Amino acid sequence: MYKIIQVAGWVRTARASGKEFMFVEINDGSSLKGLQAVITKDIEGFEAISKVTTGTSLQLKGTLIKSPAQGQLFELQVSKTDRGHGVKILGTCEGKTYPLARKGHGLEFLREKAHLRPRTNTFGAVTRVRNNLAFATHLFFQTRGFQYIHTPIITASDCEGAGQMFQVTTLLPEHNEPIGKVPTVEPPKEKKQKKKPVAAAAEGEEQPVAAVEEKKAPEPFHAKKIDYKKDMFGKPSFLTVSGQLSVENYCCALSDVYTFGPTFRAENSHTSRHLAEFWMIEPELAFATLQDNMECAEAYLKFCLQYVIENNLEDLKFFEQQYEKGLIERLKNVIDTPFRRLPYTEAVEILEGLIKEDKVKFENKVYWGVDLASEHEKHLTEKVFGGPIILYNYPKDIKAFYMKVNEDGKTVQAMDVLVPRIGEIIGGSAREENLERLDKRIEECKLDKQAYWWYRELRQYGTVPHCGFGLGFERLVMMATGMENIRDVIPFPRAPGQAEF
Amino acid sequence: MYKIIQVAGWVRTARASGKEFMFVEINDGSSLKGLQAVITKDIEGFEAISKVTTGTSLQLKGTLIKSPAQGQLFELQVSKTDRGHGVKILGTCEGKTYPLARKGHGLEFLREKAHLRPRTNTFGAVTRVRNNLAFATHLFFQTRGFQYIHTPIITASDCEGAGQMFQVTTLLPEHNEPIGKVPTVEPPKEKKQKKKPVAAAAEGEEQPVAAVEEKKAPEPFHAKKIDYKKDMFGKPSFLTVSGQLSVENYCCALSDVYTFGPTFRAENSHTSRHLAEFWMIEPELAFATLQDNMECAEAYLKFCLQYVIENNLEDLKFFEQQYEKGLIERLKNVIDTPFRRLPYTEAVEILEGLIKEDKVKFENKVYWGVDLASEHEKHLTEKVFGGPIILYNYPKDIKAFYMKVNEDGKTVQAMDVLVPRIGEIIGGSAREENLERLDKRIEECKLDKQAYWWYRELRQYGTVPHCGFGLGFERLVMMATGMENIRDVIPFPRAPGQAEF
Repeated sequence: MYKIIQVAGWVRTARASGKEFMFVEINDGSSLKGLQAVITKDIEGFEAISKVTTGTSLQLKGTLIKSPAQGQLFELQVSKTDRGHGVKILGTCEGKTYPLARKGHGLEFLREKAHLRPRTNTFGAVTRVRNNLAFATHLFFQTRGFQYIHTPIITASDCEGAGQMFQVTTLLPEHNEPIGKVPTVEPPKEKKQKKKPVAAAAEGEEQPVAAVEEKKAPEPFHAKKIDYKKDMFGKPSFLTVSGQLSVENYCCALSDVYTFGPTFRAENSHTSRHLAEFWMIEPELAFATLQDNMECAEAYLKFCLQYVIENNLEDLKFFEQQYEKGLIERLKNVIDTPFRRLPYTEAVEILEGLIKEDKVKFENKVYWGVDLASEHEKHLTEKVFGGPIILYNYPKDIKAFYMKVNEDGKTVQAMDVLVPRIGEIIGGSAREENLERLDKRIEECKLDKQAYWWYRELRQYGTVPHCGFGLGFERLVMMATGMENIRDVIPFPRAPGQAEF
Repeated sequence: MYKIIQVAGWVRTARASGKEFMFVEINDGSSLKGLQAVITKDIEGFEAISKVTTGTSLQLKGTLIKSPAQGQLFELQVSKTDRGHGVKILGTCEGKTYPLARKGHGLEFLREKAHLRPRTNTFGAVTRVRNNLAFATHLFFQTRGFQYIHTPIITASDCEGAGQMFQVTTLLPEHNEPIGKVPTVEPPKEKKQKKKPVAAAAEGEEQPVAAVEEKKAPEPFHAKKIDYKKDMFGKPSFLTVSGQLSVENYCCALSDVYTFGPTFRAENSHTSRHLAEFWMIEPELAFATLQDNMECAEAYLKFCLQYVIENNLEDLKFFEQQYEKGLIERLKNVIDTPFRRLPYTEAVEILEGLIKEDKVKFENKVYWGVDLASEHEKHLTEKVFGGPIILYNYPKDIKAFYMKVNEDGKTVQAMDVLVPRIGEIIGGSAREENLERLDKRIEECKLDKQAYWWYRELRQYGTVPHCGFGLGFERLVMMATGMENIRDVIPFPRAPGQAEF
């Protein structure tokens, strides 16, 4: 019994066994482990094969047999036979300059080689887990009747006022000259310059000194003159920080919906937990309460983790070995434990009690009304409860305007899911569906009512109780892999000073 | 046999039958047809129900029975019983001001009401079909071992040089003041202004007249002074026009991969076929030829259409009735017909022959080397072949630098899939995997080699033959629904002057 197969991939290791054989392990990225090929010297091209280096791309045709060696079920025999065996080098790889020629590079070094790092064990595994978490997300919501909505990326409105926004424009002089193009020979906008009389300066259109002195200088660009009517969208526009407000429109028409797309923060933060560009999942449930929201969030998180345990066990074992002892146990614990739910107020009391009894010390103060710091959240989930918890009913002053105010007038129906090692992984709320109460909150938060005219109309015309939550997808990948830096769980991270590749 | 259920949704129609009954059709967006409820006057709240208007949100509890009426299988009986029947108005909807109070609005009118239009039959159906096309996309690639890669949205490099790019920046003075926030009371940057002496103008830093006259004016912003080192990414950065170059990095490590994300064009085009923001699917196949690429494209397209025929038949029938006669037949024709493949050269010869014989007239000229216009493409697929075709081996001068040049030195291994009614739906190519030949093309196209250093390294280290294609997702939705304006197949269209909602 034999099976002839043709495979292709990149050489991970190659070594000679005397002058008779070569052992070559190739990998095509579909799984952590490669395929070991035993190539005998009678095969055409053996001479070249005996010199291959890590990173070389190969095509092999041989017979798949049960392997006599330990640690692998099969191996590929490539010998001179009547079955068409053969080897073909597709692309060589010079060991002297190839950045990944040797093993064991640090994660920081690999970030500089983001185009090659998916060829490593770590980033191959991260990619496969990330892929399955994304697919599990769709599977979860699709099988429960949620509609996937592509909310807009470019927006003229702000969601929560929570994050700094990137501006999107076609007004800057450079916008038509992306890196990667050799500058055109003709001076740009020459015609326009000729038409413009110098006297224009007297009419309030400042004529810069430099432009007069130096004829070739590009036309200057003044912010005072920024005329957003001339920008592509006729007004200042930005990259979205959240699809929530947009997706609520669809929730108030099609019931259960979700978004899964990129979101942006223009914050100058250099932490291992923040990116300028990241992916978010934001489900929105119609005719639903905060309790429904909690149930959905818990079920979703468990479904995703279960999915990677079932489909990426080899990768998870690798992460457990290389990055986090007890990873799989931690994931199973999240899956098996009902998430403990408790009000914010109770959580603060617990922490205050522990501080009073000198059982714990925090850098940040704890008191009712504080926005809990990461250290508090981690202490609660890791030490106090030893598993995931859901805090709810937060003080309204630390939460967004659209959250439903409770009858106490002090708290809102917000909820945060906290998990060991990560802290907050999900944040959500019941949305205020009453127009009068929403307007009151908009005023309290000093927002411009007019800008939310369409959001308000959802409450004016057939309003319904609805709620939703947001999950930063990269946080989920970190949670599932044990990777500690968010820049290592996204293909090409965007952070201050970093937009290469 | 009866089943008690609780449902919620929005009133589509409500009419009284004498003073004994109300017939109320409610819809929750999960399907085209709503559920008819027969509410009898003995139920508590009948008085209020008898006045409900279109758009009102309701919760009903009743007994689901076989309907005696035609055109529906079931109806909901809501009467005073011992089974807990009841009605609850969740949100009223004033008919006088509600924009959708009456039926039959034009698509143009509805574009102005993009927050409410998903409540209509048309946009509910578009959303459900779009959702299933997106899920079918993931299903197709996931079940074939492709990894889903989130390529970056913000980029410092340009892909094809094909499209105008939006610039992303934090340098414009307005970037921190999104619409929707009431301006802060304190004048911004006051401190800085105080520090700056007026005399600075003499040092070449132009002091605008207006700023001197008016003390409260914000600090001016000069393009001449744009220091991109101070921008978030330290250099000019843009919104991606394609994820292809990025995803090739992953293809050259993990083999078959795909992207599915938003892409952008800063073009001032006001057509029914173009958007500033749209979603693209870009698979990339390793160890593959142009033939493999064609097979994948054809199979993918057929899979998606088959999926919506199986899962959205009710919606498709609606589109057939309202928008395009013969829609379902057209889709089935695409599914059942093997796509005819022919070289570009042959297609040009066919068109030239038809013109010579006076069998057809075009606005645009046809000759070898021309970039075929939409009228040519549609004529070929609709009239000449009566079904989808794949053209390949295009003149290299009208295609991008990364496409593999054929041995004739004149054509490249590009392919376009053309379908009736839409024209080009897919464009793809085999990528040049030979570094020397790639460099030659980069030079010919007057691109900056250095900017593509990482792309070139894929060819330097273990290069492999690979290919891929791109499909504009909205084109696919148009193809599947028969909708004729691209702004009607995306939740919130972005086009020149249009970034509302």
